[in-house]
Amino acid sequence: MQPDLQSTEHTFSDGLFTVGDPVTHWSVRATKQVGYEVRVEENLLSVANRAILEDAVEGETVRRFIVVDSVVDELYGTRIRNYFDHHAVDYHLLVLPAGEPAKNMELVLKVIDGLDTFGIDRRREPVIAIGGGVLMDIVGFAASMYRRATPWIRIPTTLIGLVDAGVGAKTGVNNDGHKNRLGTYFPADRTLLDRTFLNTLDDRHIGNGLAEILKIALIKDARLFDLLEQYGEELVRDRLQRPAEPVTAEDLAASPGRAADPATEVIERAIHGMLEELQPNLWEKVLERVVDYGHSFSPVIEMHALPELLHGEAVAVDMALTTVVAEQRGLLDAEERRRILRVISALGLPAWHETCTPKLLIPALRDTVRHRDGLQRLPLPVGIGAATFVNDLTEDELDAAAQKLADLHWGDSE
Amino acid sequence: MQPDLQSTEHTFSDGLFTVGDPVTHWSVRATKQVGYEVRVEENLLSVANRAILEDAVEGETVRRFIVVDSVVDELYGTRIRNYFDHHAVDYHLLVLPAGEPAKNMELVLKVIDGLDTFGIDRRREPVIAIGGGVLMDIVGFAASMYRRATPWIRIPTTLIGLVDAGVGAKTGVNNDGHKNRLGTYFPADRTLLDRTFLNTLDDRHIGNGLAEILKIALIKDARLFDLLEQYGEELVRDRLQRPAEPVTAEDLAASPGRAADPATEVIERAIHGMLEELQPNLWEKVLERVVDYGHSFSPVIEMHALPELLHGEAVAVDMALTTVVAEQRGLLDAEERRRILRVISALGLPAWHETCTPKLLIPALRDTVRHRDGLQRLPLPVGIGAATFVNDLTEDELDAAAQKLADLHWGDSE
Repeated sequence: MQPDLQSTEHTFSDGLFTVGDPVTHWSVRATKQVGYEVRVEENLLSVANRAILEDAVEGETVRRFIVVDSVVDELYGTRIRNYFDHHAVDYHLLVLPAGEPAKNMELVLKVIDGLDTFGIDRRREPVIAIGGGVLMDIVGFAASMYRRATPWIRIPTTLIGLVDAGVGAKTGVNNDGHKNRLGTYFPADRTLLDRTFLNTLDDRHIGNGLAEILKIALIKDARLFDLLEQYGEELVRDRLQRPAEPVTAEDLAASPGRAADPATEVIERAIHGMLEELQPNLWEKVLERVVDYGHSFSPVIEMHALPELLHGEAVAVDMALTTVVAEQRGLLDAEERRRILRVISALGLPAWHETCTPKLLIPALRDTVRHRDGLQRLPLPVGIGAATFVNDLTEDELDAAAQKLADLHWGDSE
Repeated sequence: MQPDLQSTEHTFSDGLFTVGDPVTHWSVRATKQVGYEVRVEENLLSVANRAILEDAVEGETVRRFIVVDSVVDELYGTRIRNYFDHHAVDYHLLVLPAGEPAKNMELVLKVIDGLDTFGIDRRREPVIAIGGGVLMDIVGFAASMYRRATPWIRIPTTLIGLVDAGVGAKTGVNNDGHKNRLGTYFPADRTLLDRTFLNTLDDRHIGNGLAEILKIALIKDARLFDLLEQYGEELVRDRLQRPAEPVTAEDLAASPGRAADPATEVIERAIHGMLEELQPNLWEKVLERVVDYGHSFSPVIEMHALPELLHGEAVAVDMALTTVVAEQRGLLDAEERRRILRVISALGLPAWHETCTPKLLIPALRDTVRHRDGLQRLPLPVGIGAATFVNDLTEDELDAAAQKLADLHWGDSE
């Protein structure tokens, strides 16, 4: 019979195989193309909006496995079920506990058990995650390992999800007291951003997201910092919704630097800045990452203070501390430091925490050094809106900064 | 102060961000380059051989986390410890249970706990896995998720590890009775192949690896099939070692088609054929994979028969069954089917198993269809050395093939 031959010419080896000419070394090179969409949508749960189901094939039975957290279930469960019922989707809705303490391998395996029971086709029945950053990290991790990769769709319902956890590639869970110790790089195929979910957030969870926005502002976007400085309290109060009444061109012309729609500009700048940093370094090949600012000491602070501090709150404490370090090094001046700490407070975020002691910070730095492969690679702000990296932070410096931060907090310094 | 600006020009978006010109859609495209080496080595555990430690930096303390399975520990533990002691490596050696029943998430988490306790730098202290296919799949999975990717080195000690599990990109574990339900694509940075380990394998574990070699032969390499047909029993007996005495050119000239060193040719052809198929499709973007031959029904057969059948034995049963299917479809003739089944037997592999009944095979096919995203994409041999894919295997055909295979097994047909 005539063989239906597969292609046999590839370029991976040092030389094509020849009988009698032994090959003892193969060098395999391969390229993976990854693409994903992040899109702003309004009223995703309105049955008229097809965005969630736009990949469904007309005429086929649509099956979807949906995961939400308990807070989302309480607030939006009825609307979510109604949406999928309306579109005659054969679905299973799995509800997971919310919050950082629930970010563990056990829940990843629970998602996987649910997938096994429901049964999904490997490539064309994307898992849908609707919830906060923790929920998305868990579902994304499960999807990345289920049958070695199952597509998924992300719908963040919190501000931190919208501007941070929802737009990047990282998935993961905490393990054995270590923050995000396990995970993968596996962006959702599609992230749908719907700000109306923010209406049901409390002030602390708005602040939680604003901390990550402030991070982007400090390291690369002075205009974004100005907006936070001008509109911080208003953004918290209005939950970053569109203004009820449009600001007129005249009003704007009269006040240079004012924004017609500060909330929209803040969100877009934050997402854009984040993606600018992530895209060229999606797998963290380069370990000097400005977006790691606020994330050098905060993993240990957060895990030690759990469940007291939200992720963004621990990041705020880290930013306050490293702002003082930057001031001590002359990278920014006292007035810039004061402005930064004032904005942290205005956003409802803590600028100090009792875990900020050398006893905790020194081992925290040691673990960060391991995570950054043997060097500190510590991002520090340079003025407001730029950053640099240092590898020579000393324990004495850290000690002095922690002391200064405590003094500022207790009013013993200014 | 002058900002030390990060680059802000990227091409990921539909348009660069402009104030007042709202961006509502970001399309992120990124490319990941992956490379890995597969290399033939001899006597890796001889202290004079630096291959295992070739990435160690001169003058630095070398720290390594090493994982072996209990069989390797028993046979080679002393030599392994001696090797790392000799080179003054600060190491921890973790011993895991061996065998398919141990291929579970629990052991992945055990590796991770070990890594946490030992503490390793993220990029330059590769984890070293020495063992069979199961051990490598577990360690690779742990490495892929630990800090979202930790480099690793693979040293297969079994034939199936050498020609199959050790040369590709897949990692993973079984879950809830499903074969390899969880995993990632994460090739070891370096795989070192040392055939001397095969000297301690029993016949069944030699056959276990030969089944994967036979798979490559059937789907794409008629010469490899000839070698297995000519030398099958000898390969098992001599554990695929180099011949003690070289075959002379005269002997070879007198017998066309004979091989000077069949074992070496068999191993190299198998690895080369495998890599030819894997490299252009490392992440299984294309779900029609000839290397899935023998892996359509075997996952369910293997998990049901556990621990009775080794992986390669279940693959052999699948190949016997699908050889009969191919014969029924006229893709190969009765003589070719007889030759294939004879070689399966000569390699000490089963050509039938009691689980080969429609009751098990039909749901097995259903799960494979899910795994292949809604289509059977069933590779079938076309003669010997080529393959094709079918999507229309019926339950009646499967039923008839299972019956015919049973009759062949019990001598009621030929």
